[in-house]
Amino acid sequence: MTGTPASPRRRGAARTEELLRVTLDLAAEVGYAGLSIEAVARRAGVGKHTIYRRWPSIAALLLDALSLVWTSDLDYRNAGDVRADLREQFLRSSLALSSPPIGPVYRAVIAEAQADPTLRATLHERFLITVEQSTLDRITRAQRTGELTAEANLEFAAEVLCGTLYYRWLLSTRPIDESAVDGLLDMFMAAYGSSNQN
Amino acid sequence: MTGTPASPRRRGAARTEELLRVTLDLAAEVGYAGLSIEAVARRAGVGKHTIYRRWPSIAALLLDALSLVWTSDLDYRNAGDVRADLREQFLRSSLALSSPPIGPVYRAVIAEAQADPTLRATLHERFLITVEQSTLDRITRAQRTGELTAEANLEFAAEVLCGTLYYRWLLSTRPIDESAVDGLLDMFMAAYGSSNQN
Repeated sequence: MTGTPASPRRRGAARTEELLRVTLDLAAEVGYAGLSIEAVARRAGVGKHTIYRRWPSIAALLLDALSLVWTSDLDYRNAGDVRADLREQFLRSSLALSSPPIGPVYRAVIAEAQADPTLRATLHERFLITVEQSTLDRITRAQRTGELTAEANLEFAAEVLCGTLYYRWLLSTRPIDESAVDGLLDMFMAAYGSSNQN
Repeated sequence: MTGTPASPRRRGAARTEELLRVTLDLAAEVGYAGLSIEAVARRAGVGKHTIYRRWPSIAALLLDALSLVWTSDLDYRNAGDVRADLREQFLRSSLALSSPPIGPVYRAVIAEAQADPTLRATLHERFLITVEQSTLDRITRAQRTGELTAEANLEFAAEVLCGTLYYRWLLSTRPIDESAVDGLLDMFMAAYGSSNQN
């Protein structure tokens, strides 16, 4: 890497990534309610129009920031069988949800989104669709290799896999622990594992 | 009913129910943030200590109110097979979530609970445990009659059944429509239906 000047595209990507990390750090410090494009611009040392050119709102910017950290820190390893890959991913997601900066910032965005349908739509479109799609890709591959039955309705299965554990996180103080993850995977594999056993 | 004086216990239950309905109506008018035990007492024409004697906080009172409406308006009919009963219940829950007074009041409580772990615990203990238990009772009965396999981990299955559809409701603007309910029930029945078919 040293000695080779980075290409303009690479420099652009690095600047974007830095801006998104600044956004997430600032959100963790001041909370969602205290966040603004102006404040991010000041902290990052860029003009606010530089940000407005690419992000229509602070919500869009923050959701891209969550998405960046989520998808770079959390991604299917494709190392094991489908159950093992899902399990590892869900346990890492659970850790992310229960730790700063993602946990509290994400929780605050979800709270805010309850009174703001536009933010709720943005949350799904800019962040959760990516997570659902990567889960759908992983289980579609497992269907192709014969680990999952051909009849499985994978699109909705991906939603169940991505969505179920939010119930614990948002509507109780119970942890998303190994037994919750295993319970969900037991049901998923009992439903769609190709031997109908797990 | 006419002519027969109600028993003291019956009058007490009727007064409690009226107080809970007043609480829910007031919450729908003023929002969760504007709600207080004092305001409920004024509206109901009772002393605030009458309320404090039975409910430690406005959150506890409101969650009992949600619970009352939820469990009296929504309850398993036990009319059909397990899939049909779950389906009817989930479609009615979906309607309740998308309509006033339950929908917006419940959404506001959930939003508030994100910054308040005590409220989150109360939400689960005073309201959701009842819903989970009634679902668990219904599927346990189906296991006894042989509609569901003996091996099913019903406790976690009840959580998946109760929890999954919140993902749509809280984290997107997609409706909890028939296809979502059917997708969830497809997975549940594929996993635990006694023939492993649905």
